[in-house]
Amino acid sequence: MLVIYSDLHQFHNPPYEFLERGLVPYTESPARAEAILAEIKAAGIGPIVAPDDFGLEPIRAIHSQAYLDHLQTIYDQWVAVGGTPVAAMPFAFPRPGLDRSSPTPFATTGRYAFDLSAPITATSWAAILSSAYCALTGAERIARGEDFAYALCRPPGHHASRELAGGYCFLNNAAIAAHFLTAGGEKKVAILDIDVHHGNGTQSIFYERDDVLFISIHGAPEWEYPYFSGFADERGSGVGEGYTLNFPLEQAVSDAQYLHTVDETLAAVKAFDPAYLVLSAGFDAFDGDPLGQFRLSTEGFGAIGQRVARLTLPTLIVQEGGYAIHALGRNVVSLLKGFAMGRAHDQHSAK
Amino acid sequence: MLVIYSDLHQFHNPPYEFLERGLVPYTESPARAEAILAEIKAAGIGPIVAPDDFGLEPIRAIHSQAYLDHLQTIYDQWVAVGGTPVAAMPFAFPRPGLDRSSPTPFATTGRYAFDLSAPITATSWAAILSSAYCALTGAERIARGEDFAYALCRPPGHHASRELAGGYCFLNNAAIAAHFLTAGGEKKVAILDIDVHHGNGTQSIFYERDDVLFISIHGAPEWEYPYFSGFADERGSGVGEGYTLNFPLEQAVSDAQYLHTVDETLAAVKAFDPAYLVLSAGFDAFDGDPLGQFRLSTEGFGAIGQRVARLTLPTLIVQEGGYAIHALGRNVVSLLKGFAMGRAHDQHSAK
Repeated sequence: MLVIYSDLHQFHNPPYEFLERGLVPYTESPARAEAILAEIKAAGIGPIVAPDDFGLEPIRAIHSQAYLDHLQTIYDQWVAVGGTPVAAMPFAFPRPGLDRSSPTPFATTGRYAFDLSAPITATSWAAILSSAYCALTGAERIARGEDFAYALCRPPGHHASRELAGGYCFLNNAAIAAHFLTAGGEKKVAILDIDVHHGNGTQSIFYERDDVLFISIHGAPEWEYPYFSGFADERGSGVGEGYTLNFPLEQAVSDAQYLHTVDETLAAVKAFDPAYLVLSAGFDAFDGDPLGQFRLSTEGFGAIGQRVARLTLPTLIVQEGGYAIHALGRNVVSLLKGFAMGRAHDQHSAK
Repeated sequence: MLVIYSDLHQFHNPPYEFLERGLVPYTESPARAEAILAEIKAAGIGPIVAPDDFGLEPIRAIHSQAYLDHLQTIYDQWVAVGGTPVAAMPFAFPRPGLDRSSPTPFATTGRYAFDLSAPITATSWAAILSSAYCALTGAERIARGEDFAYALCRPPGHHASRELAGGYCFLNNAAIAAHFLTAGGEKKVAILDIDVHHGNGTQSIFYERDDVLFISIHGAPEWEYPYFSGFADERGSGVGEGYTLNFPLEQAVSDAQYLHTVDETLAAVKAFDPAYLVLSAGFDAFDGDPLGQFRLSTEGFGAIGQRVARLTLPTLIVQEGGYAIHALGRNVVSLLKGFAMGRAHDQHSAK
């Protein structure tokens, strides 16, 4: 299986984030990608290739120029006006009745974010861009006929919307890849998001489109991050109505319950009849993940991969979350092997 | 001069806040009110009285019931779901496309705040309520004929809007007092806000009203907190159009420049012809304040007090910001003495 990976992810390594437990060490660490890469190598999965350079054009299709400028320049601006050199990090946010535009970095950090988990260090942009390029490289290979590929993206992307960073995400890698695969409206693409957290960014990007089906299985927003989206009644709008499907689940979901929902989503993908599938593959639904409340097993991820493979769609698997580092590599390999097995079974059946 | 003060302010004492310098000790500390009180006593200003209990009715006129419930109950809810016992503090905020309502404390902390400077500890509510009562007690005395009074409010209030905490503020003490003084629409009230930070909360509360004139002199939002409001073109809306006046000034403003602007605002107050004046008295325009970029002197505050007094309006002075603790008490006393001197001069002239 083709794996796309770049060492540049290491350039994004903020020391901390701020969340309900206060100021804590940054959970979305370089160790995550390293753990995945090590396990992939140990399993003999490959080839492992570096991403190509795509410029900013395919990214501009998803994110605004102002936001891209912000990501690239905010750190220097921030330090210049006295912000901590640790990282540019929002601390005040525009809200109703308090939402005029101000050029100060102390305002723009808040304007372009929804939480405090996406700090921008002096070197973050190199990692952010390379992560999007991993997804784009996978998308291009698939557009050229590759049957499937895995983009080992870090930082992840599914929480990032057109102009908002958050949830460890800056550029929406899966959305950028999916839009690339639509080839300017020629092809339909389905995105299945199995990260335990709602893919709010991907949803918002495609909310009014009918050429990209977005489906998310996640912890219900009544208790799970990012809280402010992912309810079952969010179904798209305008021509996009019906092309967003949310499956919020309760805490402590088991493999069996989860796979039942996966089957529902795959039926919806099949009915949509897309040319390609993008799997936003988070592994934080794993039992014991520090940022998730589901109870999936390593074998459960294998079963997901196997089922997704049997759709027989050219598929780009995009790395999203997953924070149980001791098990993360194994879980990724389980999904990739399950996928390969599902494809092999399918090819066998077809003979 | 009547001074209203409550020891209960000490119950609001969060250990930290999060801002552009990262996680720092809480700047809006009990030491502020203690420094002011000590200097007032040393200057022989008084009597100093405790606030009366007004229930929640006059506060509900300004803040929603849901917000008041939140302030009173969030700490226990927060701890119950695993939030740090230090304080309930927002870390994720609703933003466009990501703004559904979720009942979890991890969402409501963000829904009811715009920054990370208003942490709610186990005991904060006692202080928050007593601060509003200080302002209300002053307002009631003035409504009954007292010529002027000083409410030593802590926490401050002018950044708090109907449903948003932030900028160290929870209940908008000045707005609650001003609305009380309108006596259900019978009287017109002017609010002059001289805190170095724009009084966004007070502005938003009265933005569509013509019975309360709101005027603010502050650091321009292009560089000064709270960034997202306080531009000169914010002038009220609907029947309130023209009843909000903003005077954003540049950095390093001197006494002379500032007093020139004060004179402009006082002319506007006079033209409005209100029954009462509420002075939102921040002292962070002081030269050397850690949270302000103006250059006012201690004598400058005396000159402001003197000028405001000469309006000859019954006046409630409400404590807002001011963080140069070594000079804060002196600056407050300077303003109060200047005010008393202005009144005496005026009474003398009238004879």
